Amino acid sequence: MIGYAFMGAAHSQAWRNVHRFFPLELTPEMAVLVGRNAEAVQQAAATFGWAETATDWRAVVEREDVDVVDICTPGDTHAEIALAALAAGKHVLCEKPLANTVAEAEEMTAAAEQARARGVRSMVGFSYRRVPALALMRQLVAEGVVGDIRHIRGLYLQDWIVDPEFPLVWRLQKDKAGSGALGDIGAHILDAAEFVTGHRITGVAAQTETFVKERPLPGESGTGGLSATGGTGTGPVTVDDAAVVLARTDAGALATFEATRFATGRKNRIVLEVNGSKGSLAFNFEDMNSLEHYDLAAGDRAGFTKISVTEPTHPYLEAWWPAGHGLGYEHTFVHQARDFLAAIAAEEDPTPSFADGLRIQRLLAAVEESAGAQAAWQQV
Amino acid sequence: MIGYAFMGAAHSQAWRNVHRFFPLELTPEMAVLVGRNAEAVQQAAATFGWAETATDWRAVVEREDVDVVDICTPGDTHAEIALAALAAGKHVLCEKPLANTVAEAEEMTAAAEQARARGVRSMVGFSYRRVPALALMRQLVAEGVVGDIRHIRGLYLQDWIVDPEFPLVWRLQKDKAGSGALGDIGAHILDAAEFVTGHRITGVAAQTETFVKERPLPGESGTGGLSATGGTGTGPVTVDDAAVVLARTDAGALATFEATRFATGRKNRIVLEVNGSKGSLAFNFEDMNSLEHYDLAAGDRAGFTKISVTEPTHPYLEAWWPAGHGLGYEHTFVHQARDFLAAIAAEEDPTPSFADGLRIQRLLAAVEESAGAQAAWQQV
Amino acid sequence: MIGYAFMGAAHSQAWRNVHRFFPLELTPEMAVLVGRNAEAVQQAAATFGWAETATDWRAVVEREDVDVVDICTPGDTHAEIALAALAAGKHVLCEKPLANTVAEAEEMTAAAEQARARGVRSMVGFSYRRVPALALMRQLVAEGVVGDIRHIRGLYLQDWIVDPEFPLVWRLQKDKAGSGALGDIGAHILDAAEFVTGHRITGVAAQTETFVKERPLPGESGTGGLSATGGTGTGPVTVDDAAVVLARTDAGALATFEATRFATGRKNRIVLEVNGSKGSLAFNFEDMNSLEHYDLAAGDRAGFTKISVTEPTHPYLEAWWPAGHGLGYEHTFVHQARDFLAAIAAEEDPTPSFADGLRIQRLLAAVEESAGAQAAWQQV
Amino acid sequence: MIGYAFMGAAHSQAWRNVHRFFPLELTPEMAVLVGRNAEAVQQAAATFGWAETATDWRAVVEREDVDVVDICTPGDTHAEIALAALAAGKHVLCEKPLANTVAEAEEMTAAAEQARARGVRSMVGFSYRRVPALALMRQLVAEGVVGDIRHIRGLYLQDWIVDPEFPLVWRLQKDKAGSGALGDIGAHILDAAEFVTGHRITGVAAQTETFVKERPLPGESGTGGLSATGGTGTGPVTVDDAAVVLARTDAGALATFEATRFATGRKNRIVLEVNGSKGSLAFNFEDMNSLEHYDLAAGDRAGFTKISVTEPTHPYLEAWWPAGHGLGYEHTFVHQARDFLAAIAAEEDPTPSFADGLRIQRLLAAVEESAGAQAAWQQV
Repeated sequence: MIGYAFMGAAHSQAWRNVHRFFPLELTPEMAVLVGRNAEAVQQAAATFGWAETATDWRAVVEREDVDVVDICTPGDTHAEIALAALAAGKHVLCEKPLANTVAEAEEMTAAAEQARARGVRSMVGFSYRRVPALALMRQLVAEGVVGDIRHIRGLYLQDWIVDPEFPLVWRLQKDKAGSGALGDIGAHILDAAEFVTGHRITGVAAQTETFVKERPLPGESGTGGLSATGGTGTGPVTVDDAAVVLARTDAGALATFEATRFATGRKNRIVLEVNGSKGSLAFNFEDMNSLEHYDLAAGDRAGFTKISVTEPTHPYLEAWWPAGHGLGYEHTFVHQARDFLAAIAAEEDPTPSFADGLRIQRLLAAVEESAGAQAAWQQV
Repeated sequence: MIGYAFMGAAHSQAWRNVHRFFPLELTPEMAVLVGRNAEAVQQAAATFGWAETATDWRAVVEREDVDVVDICTPGDTHAEIALAALAAGKHVLCEKPLANTVAEAEEMTAAAEQARARGVRSMVGFSYRRVPALALMRQLVAEGVVGDIRHIRGLYLQDWIVDPEFPLVWRLQKDKAGSGALGDIGAHILDAAEFVTGHRITGVAAQTETFVKERPLPGESGTGGLSATGGTGTGPVTVDDAAVVLARTDAGALATFEATRFATGRKNRIVLEVNGSKGSLAFNFEDMNSLEHYDLAAGDRAGFTKISVTEPTHPYLEAWWPAGHGLGYEHTFVHQARDFLAAIAAEEDPTPSFADGLRIQRLLAAVEESAGAQAAWQQV
Repeated sequence: MIGYAFMGAAHSQAWRNVHRFFPLELTPEMAVLVGRNAEAVQQAAATFGWAETATDWRAVVEREDVDVVDICTPGDTHAEIALAALAAGKHVLCEKPLANTVAEAEEMTAAAEQARARGVRSMVGFSYRRVPALALMRQLVAEGVVGDIRHIRGLYLQDWIVDPEFPLVWRLQKDKAGSGALGDIGAHILDAAEFVTGHRITGVAAQTETFVKERPLPGESGTGGLSATGGTGTGPVTVDDAAVVLARTDAGALATFEATRFATGRKNRIVLEVNGSKGSLAFNFEDMNSLEHYDLAAGDRAGFTKISVTEPTHPYLEAWWPAGHGLGYEHTFVHQARDFLAAIAAEEDPTPSFADGLRIQRLLAAVEESAGAQAAWQQV
Repeated sequence: MIGYAFMGAAHSQAWRNVHRFFPLELTPEMAVLVGRNAEAVQQAAATFGWAETATDWRAVVEREDVDVVDICTPGDTHAEIALAALAAGKHVLCEKPLANTVAEAEEMTAAAEQARARGVRSMVGFSYRRVPALALMRQLVAEGVVGDIRHIRGLYLQDWIVDPEFPLVWRLQKDKAGSGALGDIGAHILDAAEFVTGHRITGVAAQTETFVKERPLPGESGTGGLSATGGTGTGPVTVDDAAVVLARTDAGALATFEATRFATGRKNRIVLEVNGSKGSLAFNFEDMNSLEHYDLAAGDRAGFTKISVTEPTHPYLEAWWPAGHGLGYEHTFVHQARDFLAAIAAEEDPTPSFADGLRIQRLLAAVEESAGAQAAWQQV
């Protein structure tokens, strides 16, 4: 695994526990943790339970005894590492967004296609697909319970940089992060919408905004570019703070999306609602163990039914606790690890593929293009 | 009062009861109810408690003993009636949207300005401004509790025409209704957003859609163009079923709006949320007696506080029941009647004025313009 | 109508509007408002819209032109007025609790039974039975959707006397009010539980408490004994502030009830939940236009379905607004008036009868008995 | 660790991960898993990650290389194992309820007191104390934010045995489980109430019920006595299905508690609300990452504030994810392991102690006593 910050901790938790809950043919061994700072990576490895550490990822991805490379670094390094790992015949799990540019994502996808012919697997980390309630939502849509979908409404709202004194961490720098709220959290909600509905977004109109344009330079950076002590001086914020999007899909739905880090009081609110000809489904990550379903056929007894997605028959739940004993955020990574390992064992391609990641990358680019052109419509 | 369908019933309820709860200098007398069908209007007058009926509104608006004209007809007749009534020196309360076109609304606004010089008052019926929780929301914004507003999120979701067999009532015909979801309910949420925030929308990008393009012709129409028995044959739906909008305001907020009649399961969901530099406020009409407030200054004790807007110190509540004994939809019309009568008595101009109605009309036109031009940005 | 405070205002609103929404054979005329203070009753009559006033209720209940007597006074006068009115052949609507003692309630019930033989109708004002969602809840139980009921959970929580400086209004005096939270609001939740389930409570164990035992004497009393200015001196609170109850029913359910005026932050929270062998139903007055239903048969798609009780096919809703446009507290009194007038016209006995009121009175007495005997079980 | 069913899985997860998130002086080593069935325990050890297995707990608790004994067996074996382990000088973590009888609990508590003198620590597993929101609730009460507590309302509602065909697993047998809903989940809510408020319950009146009195004998039992395949024949249910309790505390609060396995649709609903002179706090495990706080001092801006208990300054949260990324059920066991190991390292007594467990045991006995004597009051 390369990178040991926020995502590194979450992925480590997954590799450590996945085989304790899910029966798997392949059992993960936490071999090598890689980071640039030797001391820091050793400390992280001790904390997370990795056997070895290294500072040169190139050497590690070539190692014979390494089968899987898990990329948890900022977006600007994804392409280089993934290309090397795939070339070396390693299965690759790459955090989202797949890359910082469409060009990188295209190159990675091409490499993944070639590697696939050699039985090498690749997957991009849209972990929210593994929230049981969202997986159930997809299943219900596929069963036809909502009929033809007319509306998709997606929100991903955070508020961690509302304070203008919050420092200029790497997630606020375009060269490191590619984009701001758009790629970090907008990518998740766009992917979730396509995952759940099966629709493909065909065009977008968008606006983005950077509300706080100058911030203090960071001192020592905290975990995952999510916090930092203050340093000296200020610098320009080069990414968006928020993005709002209108979209249409190939199956005739009208969609709205919003991703922002300025929704004061909304810590990690991910809302996805679809309205169809037969019913509706609504999800809110703040209540992540539930899914709401409206069945038009129930007539005057209809209403939104709040399903507790904790039954053993619900996606991923066969492995966990009795009904009503809910899961948390980190379980999505355990489920992701399970699906990835199961696909490798079955010699099948896991999803979301790099091609799925590329499609989202193109959507992100179209959103930026539209936002830069006064919301002019961008066909995708 | 002219018109006696859905809005006619609601306005009658207001005129009948407003002085029973609010101390007023002017007491309404329910003099004449006007409608085209003599028999139907007589029946309505008996039900609602009007003293007389008439079929010719022109004669009525000239009557000496009539002081106020309340226009509850479809939008295509607003301009003609309002102009005549203002010319005759009658105070006018006109249902929203003010008119079916910007040109009509401009003419009406000009007439209202002239009448105003003669002490004649006019008001447009954006009744949701009179929901106590929305009035409190405006008050809290004005007090500065949310600081600088960065995000406005407005939804008005209904589902009454999801069934493709629902007939082609007047609300689905452009010549009668002007537009569909946009003018009927989108107008409310746009007005509510400006009312609450004090911001003015300066530009929009939008998309609209008509999901069901052909519907059965109606037989006998029900109350307020909201229901009908089926007739023979079908006809084209000439208005939008849904509209989605991105907007910016003069004070730097990024806004999204959605108005739809296809949000299956959402009967009359009006959501308005604002996020600011110091906090947030959120309203949902499905829980109309509450307002949620997030105060950033509360640090790790912060959270959305659900205020029960039923205290005697809250807007309009001094007149009603003990705390916790909530109000319903129709109370907004009682409050509207109160504010209108109080303004007349005080010789002041009530709000929202025809000029406010005109501004919303221009927004509606800009939305349609943008939607017709692939979401191209429209400055307002 | 005798009494013109909180309940007087609510009942007046009902008599003024009931025939404007519901088709009725009998139309109410608001003839005489009765109160002890001539000036105050005249002012109230003008506000509420009563034609005449009087200070001697005995004369009024004898008047030929009076058909219905509506008793909205404190509980200590119910019996005397009701007995006189029934004897005079007037239909009687009496506020709850029926009386301040079981003996009075027995006498009233006997008189009602005799009057009934002469075609004279009587009803007790358990107005919450007329909340559409509670009426629907009863209907669903009767249809068998929850199967055999095992649990009943009833709460009526208020907080209006949490402040120890709140004065000693009549509702805190045993000689006027009979009891405290128990009779005022506990009576409602006990009646609602029996109404909804069809079960009869057969035994109780209870505790009551008076948290603030001495309060300032009131100066001028406000509306309905719910507020007052402070006077001089203090006096003892002679009623309960709260009552908690365990109960069993004739159909094998285990029940808990709580009524309190000290649930800080709960303004008028009335919760009723039943759990049965096939499902559950849950109601909360803070969200009075909704009812939650859990259907066990839905398997892993089950969940609490929040029904918006605003459809025209729901109880009382045929008279009101389109779906999703909710009602408020006062509508329960309009519905009560409708049911009372409809029963009189149909020459049928309205419910709840005085006998129903007597049964609740016996429950209240059993609760007090048990509370006075260290929760010893009281068969009812 | 002795026992490897539901609690065994949860405890294993805790021992495996606690030191990966919390800095600890003592790092757990998962040495020996003990169970009666050699094959089953070996399989469980492989799944959970234990180094060795054994079938004789007596030998294991004597082993030199074992420092901690974690008891996850049914209640009937707690006393014997705990006494042996304490005698052997091992720190003991014992699942709740502490024992099946007061006598056993007394003996265990005495042994714990003696062991304590030798530096041997003991703790009982009321794991819900480690829900961050409940820990914060206790902290806020201690800070005085609710003032004097008048009401405590505790519910623990499940529905896993509503089906009368659900088999007679050990949790439904008095000799194994001690009691039914009462000891299994009622114990949790009683402990949580005392933990949060700091009050001690001084007396109770109660009723219990067994709704389904005969059930199919189980075939092969599932995890933790929570499921089973059907066997042949039927047998009597010897424990309660539900218990309802009135209580009073040493600090003058009036309390109600309910524990049931028959609340259809309520999977694991744990509700705890306290109302005080200055405010209220409310918790619901179905929304376990939140706590609601009502602050009376906020006047007409007051309301229940839903605190997202996911900030790094909240109890236990410094170890986990960014704000808004919630935890799940199993985290309570990780927190429990952390507190236990931290106390051992600090040579302090962890809480809840065996004495705390004994007090709850006495409450359970008092509830049963009262229920058997028609709700007669039992001083505790």
